[in-house]
Amino acid sequence: MGNLDDLAKKTGSQIIPADATSVEDLENLVEKSMEILGGKIDFVLHSIGMSVNVRKKNPYTDPNYDYTKKGWDVSAVSFHKLLNVLYHKNAMKEWGSIVALTYMAAQRVFPDYNDMADNKAYLESIARSFGYFFGRDHKVRVNTISQSPTATTAGNGVKGFDGFINYSEKMSPLGNASALECADYTITLFSDLTKKVTLQNLFHDGGFSNMGVSTAVMEKFE
Amino acid sequence: MGNLDDLAKKTGSQIIPADATSVEDLENLVEKSMEILGGKIDFVLHSIGMSVNVRKKNPYTDPNYDYTKKGWDVSAVSFHKLLNVLYHKNAMKEWGSIVALTYMAAQRVFPDYNDMADNKAYLESIARSFGYFFGRDHKVRVNTISQSPTATTAGNGVKGFDGFINYSEKMSPLGNASALECADYTITLFSDLTKKVTLQNLFHDGGFSNMGVSTAVMEKFE
Amino acid sequence: MGNLDDLAKKTGSQIIPADATSVEDLENLVEKSMEILGGKIDFVLHSIGMSVNVRKKNPYTDPNYDYTKKGWDVSAVSFHKLLNVLYHKNAMKEWGSIVALTYMAAQRVFPDYNDMADNKAYLESIARSFGYFFGRDHKVRVNTISQSPTATTAGNGVKGFDGFINYSEKMSPLGNASALECADYTITLFSDLTKKVTLQNLFHDGGFSNMGVSTAVMEKFE
Amino acid sequence: MGNLDDLAKKTGSQIIPADATSVEDLENLVEKSMEILGGKIDFVLHSIGMSVNVRKKNPYTDPNYDYTKKGWDVSAVSFHKLLNVLYHKNAMKEWGSIVALTYMAAQRVFPDYNDMADNKAYLESIARSFGYFFGRDHKVRVNTISQSPTATTAGNGVKGFDGFINYSEKMSPLGNASALECADYTITLFSDLTKKVTLQNLFHDGGFSNMGVSTAVMEKFE
Repeated sequence: MGNLDDLAKKTGSQIIPADATSVEDLENLVEKSMEILGGKIDFVLHSIGMSVNVRKKNPYTDPNYDYTKKGWDVSAVSFHKLLNVLYHKNAMKEWGSIVALTYMAAQRVFPDYNDMADNKAYLESIARSFGYFFGRDHKVRVNTISQSPTATTAGNGVKGFDGFINYSEKMSPLGNASALECADYTITLFSDLTKKVTLQNLFHDGGFSNMGVSTAVMEKFE
Repeated sequence: MGNLDDLAKKTGSQIIPADATSVEDLENLVEKSMEILGGKIDFVLHSIGMSVNVRKKNPYTDPNYDYTKKGWDVSAVSFHKLLNVLYHKNAMKEWGSIVALTYMAAQRVFPDYNDMADNKAYLESIARSFGYFFGRDHKVRVNTISQSPTATTAGNGVKGFDGFINYSEKMSPLGNASALECADYTITLFSDLTKKVTLQNLFHDGGFSNMGVSTAVMEKFE
Repeated sequence: MGNLDDLAKKTGSQIIPADATSVEDLENLVEKSMEILGGKIDFVLHSIGMSVNVRKKNPYTDPNYDYTKKGWDVSAVSFHKLLNVLYHKNAMKEWGSIVALTYMAAQRVFPDYNDMADNKAYLESIARSFGYFFGRDHKVRVNTISQSPTATTAGNGVKGFDGFINYSEKMSPLGNASALECADYTITLFSDLTKKVTLQNLFHDGGFSNMGVSTAVMEKFE
Repeated sequence: MGNLDDLAKKTGSQIIPADATSVEDLENLVEKSMEILGGKIDFVLHSIGMSVNVRKKNPYTDPNYDYTKKGWDVSAVSFHKLLNVLYHKNAMKEWGSIVALTYMAAQRVFPDYNDMADNKAYLESIARSFGYFFGRDHKVRVNTISQSPTATTAGNGVKGFDGFINYSEKMSPLGNASALECADYTITLFSDLTKKVTLQNLFHDGGFSNMGVSTAVMEKFE
């Protein structure tokens, strides 16, 4: 974990490893975090996703169902477990904020996104379902950010990803949102200026989500 | 109205002309219809749309606002007036069905659809708003069908329409829905098998509305 | 399976038992069906759902994650397995139709619906994701019907279900849709009149889904 | 305009009166603003709405259509005219931000909201339609904020408004969002942290928009 250690030094942070599918690990993570931070937590970001079927190049129509389960557990249920631990330890400050990252394949078909589409749909549903109880009982908000396709280690495994990035860029009036811009946007959801935003899936995508077609995409079809 | 007269003969129907922006004309239309049909009406289809700005080739960003108003009145308010007349004359049978045709530009951007996008958004809102009162008070359902782009006199006025039809065909897993297929679908909404479907905007589009991208469209970007 | 046998006699049908989480059982089901029906299949209905956490009265915020997995496997993944078997056996007729039943908890929070909300979100995502490939490759449509709350064995396990049925009835301009009406609606989706409807989640709910509030519900708050 | 003058003094601002339905007035408003601010504009808020039918207590099912037109012109078309003037004067800074306020009646039925529902649907459609061109051509984002019901001069004209505020409060896990909180949220959309958010309708409502029912509302139905 060389890069992580560098990041920790630069930011004066401590890294706490955790298997996100293990409630025990997550309990340790939350407890240690509260110790280090000296009390309750202001905000939490869930940014975890992995499809074994994508890695093994199984098509969506012919998965290995054990891999399907593993991907669902890592990509979606991990968010429920994290919320569960935070909720029962009463670890979040009142008006704290929890965000998970997602992708629009949860609403619409992107053929190569494979079973991550279904995992993201499940993840977004958790944000609403658990978000209700977290809001009602602890005044904590829970939202998801649906980000433009972003070149990541995970994304690079997806077939034809460069062509897709290009298509998405041409469709979006403001172009794709970058990872850095996603970080900026996430900050607004952690700030006190968005206290009453909850249960939402928020598109951060240069406008892609509400496009039917752009003039730039149409040029390819004329 | 040569073609209309032919159609009337073929189907044993009578044509009643009406300016859809005139409440008086619509009252006459509904009264005459009830006379001819011998009682209350089972189902009504609103299939009216016209943008003067499109016809005059005014871009969306620089309309003539008198034309904007005219297009809104013809394309959207005409539906409210029709519902108004049917409601106050108590002209619909219990469990009757009212449908208006619309297009997905009401939800997403299709740059050449111009102010018809806004008119269709208004039309769909009328279907919900008036549909509530029609359902509650007269047990009548009101829905809109959001149809694939279809080659019509109106559609042909839209710039680059052929390329767009092609794009839409390639995006939709089942291809574009034709006008005839739209007629078929409309029949299901007029039948007694759909009594409890109301306030809905129903996509009849070969799947286009829930596509992010298709493999056929991606081929142009690789 | 006394009642089932009666139903089979009445309708001249044969019952083929299958564990919907077993690909092998589903393969047998599809093969036998094709034998009995003498060829490819016109339509298929998936109407399966079960939450072990609901049965065991585990709150959403504190589930047994083995039960969560079991419920997900039975309620959602079973639909993927069924589609998988039908797709690879090329068992559906061209322009055939596949429908799964779902509930609006996939989009909005109903606190007592528990993890079935997340399962239904996953199920609806499967309908879109697999529906794309089924449409593209076999000209078969795949949709979900999102039905009013309906008094079923499963539904009766949900806390405060009678009060909820009453609330839903008062909110819906046409009242709740019954199980029989749901059967009627499903028939329209199996008919040749809806060939180009695919990837859709279709609300069959008396209008509930597009209500913000009704006058009948507001009476309780004045 | 006593209060306005006080506000201007307190904030060191200048008030420029404009009839929002007059392109000429809006041109003057934008020109004067650029003079005072010494260049291009960073952000613009449209917060205008008025239904003559609501004021005159005409029911939705029986409007005066001249009032309908007036309300549409003031509440919705004014936003198009404002965008038009800003676009053609090239008055917005690159990566500037434009926001309009709206209400969820654009998506769902609130019976007493009357024709403002349809006006808001039209307004939100303008945000998407014009937002595309503004993004593509000037790198400016356009969004709408869909705010909780808020006690305003306009809102107070709506029948049973107190009961409705109470209902909405009980439905929302975090309670209704206040006018002050709306101002806070708007600031995030004007900041450089949200540069790639565009064409969106953003719910600022304590979670109301994604609720099916809350435990607090259910208590009234048990």
